[in-house]
Amino acid sequence: MAVYTQLSAEVLADLIAQYDVGELVSAKGIAEGVSNSNWLVETTGSAANGKRFILTMYERRIDIAELPFFLGLLDHLAAQGCPVPRTIHDRRGASSRMLDGKAVALIEFLPGVSVDQPTPAQARSVGKVLAEMHASAQGFSGTRVNDLGPDASARVLAECGEAALAEIDPGLPAMIGVAQAVASNWPGSLPSSIIHSDLFPDNVLMLGDKVSALIDFYFACNDAMAYDLAVTHAAWSFSSDGADYRPEVGQALVQGYESVRELTDSEREALPLLAQGAALRFVSSRAQDWIDTPADALVTKKDPMDFVRRLLFYRREGKDAFGT
Amino acid sequence: MAVYTQLSAEVLADLIAQYDVGELVSAKGIAEGVSNSNWLVETTGSAANGKRFILTMYERRIDIAELPFFLGLLDHLAAQGCPVPRTIHDRRGASSRMLDGKAVALIEFLPGVSVDQPTPAQARSVGKVLAEMHASAQGFSGTRVNDLGPDASARVLAECGEAALAEIDPGLPAMIGVAQAVASNWPGSLPSSIIHSDLFPDNVLMLGDKVSALIDFYFACNDAMAYDLAVTHAAWSFSSDGADYRPEVGQALVQGYESVRELTDSEREALPLLAQGAALRFVSSRAQDWIDTPADALVTKKDPMDFVRRLLFYRREGKDAFGT
Repeated sequence: MAVYTQLSAEVLADLIAQYDVGELVSAKGIAEGVSNSNWLVETTGSAANGKRFILTMYERRIDIAELPFFLGLLDHLAAQGCPVPRTIHDRRGASSRMLDGKAVALIEFLPGVSVDQPTPAQARSVGKVLAEMHASAQGFSGTRVNDLGPDASARVLAECGEAALAEIDPGLPAMIGVAQAVASNWPGSLPSSIIHSDLFPDNVLMLGDKVSALIDFYFACNDAMAYDLAVTHAAWSFSSDGADYRPEVGQALVQGYESVRELTDSEREALPLLAQGAALRFVSSRAQDWIDTPADALVTKKDPMDFVRRLLFYRREGKDAFGT
Repeated sequence: MAVYTQLSAEVLADLIAQYDVGELVSAKGIAEGVSNSNWLVETTGSAANGKRFILTMYERRIDIAELPFFLGLLDHLAAQGCPVPRTIHDRRGASSRMLDGKAVALIEFLPGVSVDQPTPAQARSVGKVLAEMHASAQGFSGTRVNDLGPDASARVLAECGEAALAEIDPGLPAMIGVAQAVASNWPGSLPSSIIHSDLFPDNVLMLGDKVSALIDFYFACNDAMAYDLAVTHAAWSFSSDGADYRPEVGQALVQGYESVRELTDSEREALPLLAQGAALRFVSSRAQDWIDTPADALVTKKDPMDFVRRLLFYRREGKDAFGT
């Protein structure tokens, strides 16, 4: 969480003038996004575009060549009525611009707050909106491969190595074999669409029990819709250390999803494995970050075991984990 | 620049309910303030208090016992028509509350952006508003001693020690003697009021050439008004490394100030020394921070020499530095 770049008011005002949004009134660097800098920007506004925006500067991780996919997806989904922020295009029609050698995009501001402890009613709303998003994304022409699938998790864990994993926690080295087994059993032909694939509570804005926005689509890709539901289930239905499953939250999430699109038998069958794959994605990325982060860095390391506990839950419970 | 504390949406919503501002709609941690955490908060609003606020959590440096002074000053100045954000009082009338053992205050949001390269027209506006603020503050009953005056600068530099200062820059050790001389010649009886004492461009919000807000009054204290003008002159009229004086900006600042309150002869006489004292305040605090900051900390150290250059300018130019 940081603002990596300083932008002067003068530079911001020049940038804003490239859009039909009126003049710059306020800009505050906001502490969101791990690979971008973001500003909450207010302008005098225009009838077409309103007056409050998130300005995002893409600092790293995101390949600029992929921006048309991510920003085009936002526009497509917003046009379909999904609660996602649309991209404001500049006067020449471009959805992103270059500033000081970095890509920037001006994105619609949507209200709402991210909840820490979702209630069942909130989880139900998220499930419903997720299914609606999957349906709306069917018509989107862009495609993007999921480069963080089960094979990648297995490879990352193997590269970390047993010794380094054991230093983090004695329970981690066994995950190398588990990840290989999950990858080799991965189902190949489930119904697919564009999926969000990272729908943690901080990527959902809510007003009360209602979803006001899904945000941060920078992991979106073509993949099985049930996998997206599994990621969301793993992200929403546990205490943060993964030790306590909240059945009423997990059930409400699946019920909300199925109120829009009923799962097929093969999806239902696959969910326990998909959820293990989802957990392993975060086990592997957290283990890698843990090993790559210097001991004295001013960064809170996230414990990979939080998701090992989820994985063990899904292995133990099987389909019961999603029983409704 | 950081958000030091995480506040969940649930905790924020409970806090906001203590105020007559409607319900929480949005909250974004903003990257402002070196000793506080700040959030830009939006609510459904109330007729009395509007719907956009800065929520400040006081993390360190600020003595909670002094909050009634700082927050009371904002209310006093806002009531006098000064462009400063007022404090929103809670339903019981309190200007601050405790949350998780830390003091928090809900403060009016004012529009505007901080300029990097002030123009003469902007400097003139700031001078004018500074003088108006000094006049309005005369009626405020609170008092606070300036604990960062010339004696403190001389003491801090002496405590740093010649050796440590020389390691930062060979030009720094001489500042110990200079600071002692400035402190012993400090004028004792100039016209005083409450002064801001830290009015750098980032503490002024502007809309075009107009000042929309003075912010960050956490160094405010009773002291000579001309000293505040000197601090502001040192902060606004130079390139950031202090090497280039911008005469048209410095002159416009003083002219703007004098368009509201003419300086007395003794103030005019004292300005060169006051400005040296102002420069030494930042030389000493930056030198101390430099020495106290570990070499590998992820913090940009500010070079004390930026203000040594200003000090040398004021010594060389004397009253001509403020000539109009």
